[in-house]
Amino acid sequence: MNRPRPVEKMVGIIKKLPGVGHKMAERLSYHILKMPQVEVDRLIDSIQNARRTMKCCSICCNLSEHDPCPICSDVTREKNIVCVVETPQDLIAVSKVEDYKGLYFVLGGALSPLDAVGPDDIRIDKLIKRLKRDSINEVIIATDADSKGEITAVYLADIIKILGIKVTRLGYGLPVGGDIEYADEITISRAIAGRKEM
Amino acid sequence: MNRPRPVEKMVGIIKKLPGVGHKMAERLSYHILKMPQVEVDRLIDSIQNARRTMKCCSICCNLSEHDPCPICSDVTREKNIVCVVETPQDLIAVSKVEDYKGLYFVLGGALSPLDAVGPDDIRIDKLIKRLKRDSINEVIIATDADSKGEITAVYLADIIKILGIKVTRLGYGLPVGGDIEYADEITISRAIAGRKEM
Repeated sequence: MNRPRPVEKMVGIIKKLPGVGHKMAERLSYHILKMPQVEVDRLIDSIQNARRTMKCCSICCNLSEHDPCPICSDVTREKNIVCVVETPQDLIAVSKVEDYKGLYFVLGGALSPLDAVGPDDIRIDKLIKRLKRDSINEVIIATDADSKGEITAVYLADIIKILGIKVTRLGYGLPVGGDIEYADEITISRAIAGRKEM
Repeated sequence: MNRPRPVEKMVGIIKKLPGVGHKMAERLSYHILKMPQVEVDRLIDSIQNARRTMKCCSICCNLSEHDPCPICSDVTREKNIVCVVETPQDLIAVSKVEDYKGLYFVLGGALSPLDAVGPDDIRIDKLIKRLKRDSINEVIIATDADSKGEITAVYLADIIKILGIKVTRLGYGLPVGGDIEYADEITISRAIAGRKEM
């Protein structure tokens, strides 16, 4: 017997979600079929509600219920420093560091020549317009420490420096609590380059 | 900044799905927020459609668009032999073996004293009623080869034998293509006990 068509269809659609393989999609589908109706309604409502209420902040492109988002409309924050991140998730991670009191900008991805993601596919134009409009002294580039994040950082640094704005990048080194034995060579090499006098 | 409330809620609900941890729920939630509306509609429709159209077959408790399901209503199948499985997924796995032409029964789980799942929590009563009503000669127990499946098989065998019906269990042994070096001791011991003359 083949799986009934409606289940097959659900499995096929759930399988397209990131990090979900075929077996996982089957497991989720059969679980959803067994869930009480009220829980399924709650799942669907939460998706539809989040989709309906979340907006892209017109200043920093962060996801928020309000436009401008709470960070951009917070008058106590330093307005002349912007931290550039790839995604709203990255913004939340950085914002947990209370030392940083500046603003943000969410690129919506990173440059990736191999995946044909170029400067027009992420919000570089919007960032540059904002930097030209507002009086920004420093841009901290907080893209991921992988090759895409690195390419994006170098590209951004080049075009932002032309505007006469200071550009910095998050420091590389051993993660706190990290074990040197298990650190990769590139991280150790960067940690040596970034060594501090004690 | 904390995550916006609607996103937090969606993450919390998605996290309850089986095999989905916190990080995975975050990843899925942000992906769903970025998906085109038409894809979100397709996802939700597939869930609602499967929930609406899938019924529990009144004879074998398999999930099906029709009641009785295609297997129970197939006149060419042997009506006097029933294969008992835990879930509809297990039924599909067994039904791919074309040698077996009998019927099925889906228990909807396995006995698990540790999780307080007793005989009343799975469809043992319904199975016994069916065995008493229809003229069944043999019940093949195809519960999982883990401890819950084993407990369930022993329990079922005891009460089915009282009805004068032959009870068999799927054979244990090395999986085809399996490497003896990596097989566990219990599997090898069962394979020896189940050895066949060549």
